[in-house]
Amino acid sequence: MQKPSLPKGTRDFGPDQMQKRLFIFDTIRRTFQRFGFQPLETPAMENLSVLMGKYGEEGDQLLFKILNSGDFANGLTETDLQEGSKKLTPKISEKGLRYDLTVPFARYVVMNRHALPMPFKRYQMQPVWRADRPQKGRYREFYQCDADVVGTDSLLCEAEIVLMVHEVFRNLGIDKFTLKINNRKVLAGIAEAIGAAGQEGPLAVAIDKLDKIGKDKVLDELRERGFSDEAITNLEPMFGISGRPADVLQQLKTWLTTSETAQKGIAELEEVWQLVDQYGLTDSRLELDVTLARGLSYYTGAIFEVKANEVQIGSVSGGGRYDNLTGAFGQPGLSGVGISFGVDRIYDVMEELNLFPASAGQGTRVLIVPFDQDARTVALPLLTRLRQADVAAEVYPDLAKVKKMLDYANTKNIPYVVLIGSDEVQTGQLSIKNMVTGEQQKLNAAEIVELVR
Amino acid sequence: MQKPSLPKGTRDFGPDQMQKRLFIFDTIRRTFQRFGFQPLETPAMENLSVLMGKYGEEGDQLLFKILNSGDFANGLTETDLQEGSKKLTPKISEKGLRYDLTVPFARYVVMNRHALPMPFKRYQMQPVWRADRPQKGRYREFYQCDADVVGTDSLLCEAEIVLMVHEVFRNLGIDKFTLKINNRKVLAGIAEAIGAAGQEGPLAVAIDKLDKIGKDKVLDELRERGFSDEAITNLEPMFGISGRPADVLQQLKTWLTTSETAQKGIAELEEVWQLVDQYGLTDSRLELDVTLARGLSYYTGAIFEVKANEVQIGSVSGGGRYDNLTGAFGQPGLSGVGISFGVDRIYDVMEELNLFPASAGQGTRVLIVPFDQDARTVALPLLTRLRQADVAAEVYPDLAKVKKMLDYANTKNIPYVVLIGSDEVQTGQLSIKNMVTGEQQKLNAAEIVELVR
Repeated sequence: MQKPSLPKGTRDFGPDQMQKRLFIFDTIRRTFQRFGFQPLETPAMENLSVLMGKYGEEGDQLLFKILNSGDFANGLTETDLQEGSKKLTPKISEKGLRYDLTVPFARYVVMNRHALPMPFKRYQMQPVWRADRPQKGRYREFYQCDADVVGTDSLLCEAEIVLMVHEVFRNLGIDKFTLKINNRKVLAGIAEAIGAAGQEGPLAVAIDKLDKIGKDKVLDELRERGFSDEAITNLEPMFGISGRPADVLQQLKTWLTTSETAQKGIAELEEVWQLVDQYGLTDSRLELDVTLARGLSYYTGAIFEVKANEVQIGSVSGGGRYDNLTGAFGQPGLSGVGISFGVDRIYDVMEELNLFPASAGQGTRVLIVPFDQDARTVALPLLTRLRQADVAAEVYPDLAKVKKMLDYANTKNIPYVVLIGSDEVQTGQLSIKNMVTGEQQKLNAAEIVELVR
Repeated sequence: MQKPSLPKGTRDFGPDQMQKRLFIFDTIRRTFQRFGFQPLETPAMENLSVLMGKYGEEGDQLLFKILNSGDFANGLTETDLQEGSKKLTPKISEKGLRYDLTVPFARYVVMNRHALPMPFKRYQMQPVWRADRPQKGRYREFYQCDADVVGTDSLLCEAEIVLMVHEVFRNLGIDKFTLKINNRKVLAGIAEAIGAAGQEGPLAVAIDKLDKIGKDKVLDELRERGFSDEAITNLEPMFGISGRPADVLQQLKTWLTTSETAQKGIAELEEVWQLVDQYGLTDSRLELDVTLARGLSYYTGAIFEVKANEVQIGSVSGGGRYDNLTGAFGQPGLSGVGISFGVDRIYDVMEELNLFPASAGQGTRVLIVPFDQDARTVALPLLTRLRQADVAAEVYPDLAKVKKMLDYANTKNIPYVVLIGSDEVQTGQLSIKNMVTGEQQKLNAAEIVELVR
């Protein structure tokens, strides 16, 4: 018999991990809802016609494709085989697993555009699948938690995202984070200003690596990507820009005076700052970083990135404004802005910094241990009373040795055990043991409910 | 441009549906946790070696299989093609989507058996996928919500499930339901008693349809399945058994006096009843139905089925005891009992009977409508105060006509709108409109928070 195993790059989440993950999901969900975002769920499977061509050629390769049901091979010829996997795929597969939540969201908006309130604010928390090579911290199945508002280009939405990011991390207990913001129009303006107009895409991809590979290697990469020596020299001022947001914006205004696009991006950033101030956010973690680029090419305005200050782990959240969410599905001109939270990394940060509240690991609070059949006549009504008081409680189902039952409580981190033998049945005074302190006392049922609730 | 569409048999869940579904999920989850069940999540994809052969030949056909990544067709020959889809599949696919939550649970238990507390109580709420022909009420992607306890054959677990079913439906607001229980050992005893020992499998499958097709057709089916005329005549008493549980058990004892297996089943049912009584469940919906069979062949003891009394929709929950969860993975003898809740049908029942509480449809509670840029200086701090008071609130992001903004509030079922113009900015007295009654009044920010929280 073959030992069962998991597909590579996938994970089981057992009780301890799940309790903590649920804490993260619930916290993010409640914050999304408090900001007026409404839930959406889309199917795991999408038609390949919806998915293909949306993530670049590499993305197409990384889609998990589902074999057609039934006699899929019927009608296949040797020629089909010889043409290779790429051409064979559409003949035997018409569905794939979703790769992100953005494309299904765009599809949903187009299919329901006449019924949706606009602007439409939705959040979505579901797994996505990518046939990436698995490695540390990179999985083939992982959750995304996205909130987007589409159908408006109001910068109030950017400010709302800044506020919501603060609220999510504050509610998670991650106080030390940095929310960086930049604007793609500023990057486009920089490309113009250095004499590489229209090249903000490759410029962004290279600059995005500044944190990881340093300035010299970024410049090397720009050279490789065909930027001229003159352009690279002209880029020099960018690396010197620093200071408080107002100073940075002033330096940019002066440097990029010739670029209308840049000036528009700078004005947008100024307005976002002003709006955030109006909210009365007193402990803002918002920073302006002109080297923040984010790889995804569909961003056209603000871009966001969040890092946890005390853990080396990359960004835990990111997003930005796009101008054309649904263009690929025949509905152009729909602008929106979104933010995505990375649950796996947030989990790692909270675990490393020991930030999960005790309640997040809390399963059963009371284990009741009847020593014999008779003791159940006392145990079961107590169980009902505890649950009615919203206390998670269970009874050890077998008549076993006390040590075994206490071991069970310890393995499940159950803080209280109620032991019921014939004495307890007669007197109604039950023994309750605090599994953390080891302390044991005798209480009646009502007192026990009061103690543990 | 092709219009985007959904794969057949799959669904999007928009905001209204999702809010209601989340109410169901949360209610079931909280009840599971209160009963000491711990959360588990397994990957959507499992190795086909784990899935194949677990659901019968038909089940194997209904598995969604995932095309291997990369150059899957490399090395395929014409012979492979000619052998047809069934033989070709394992050469190009090694993973499939989970078909239920039981097999992944069994795999998890085997892979983690040394680390798990036993008895192990887990719940799991995740979608499953089946390549069934889609029809009304039958989908290719749907959620299952399962709770199981394995590693014990204590009948206390059956009683716990009876209690938990009552609690789940009470918490959902579905008061009128019937929880039927039977025991596979009684069915096995009936097979023995009518002279068809060992045939309880086909007997169960036929009897299971009694509700749907009536007695005569059940007997026809038994004849087709090779039951003798004598056996069918001997079965007659079964259809006459009725009355209160104690009476039914007495009739069964008398009728099945020769079958040890039946007597064991009857004794088990008696004990479950006794235990349920000990919990003090005063409004029990538990009924003994000797014709309850449930199709799945792996049940070996108690079987459960729940129906909503006022809606014709089939069962909304079901489960039972099995003796050999993990035998297929090389770990025999692990007994357990489980219950599964059908979210889609529960949703339909609650929708038809109008049982969703108002809070389940509740998204944003307050929409703030600033008439101009200046009004935002008042709107944004109010937004922050509302959210700090845990009130879901949003601001209309664009400067639009009042009618458009009020339409937006109506479409999203937002009960309160705060309108802020230059008067309001000057006086601090803001107009708040109740969108249900149409009533409008002037209040300051603190009063508004008090009113809507």
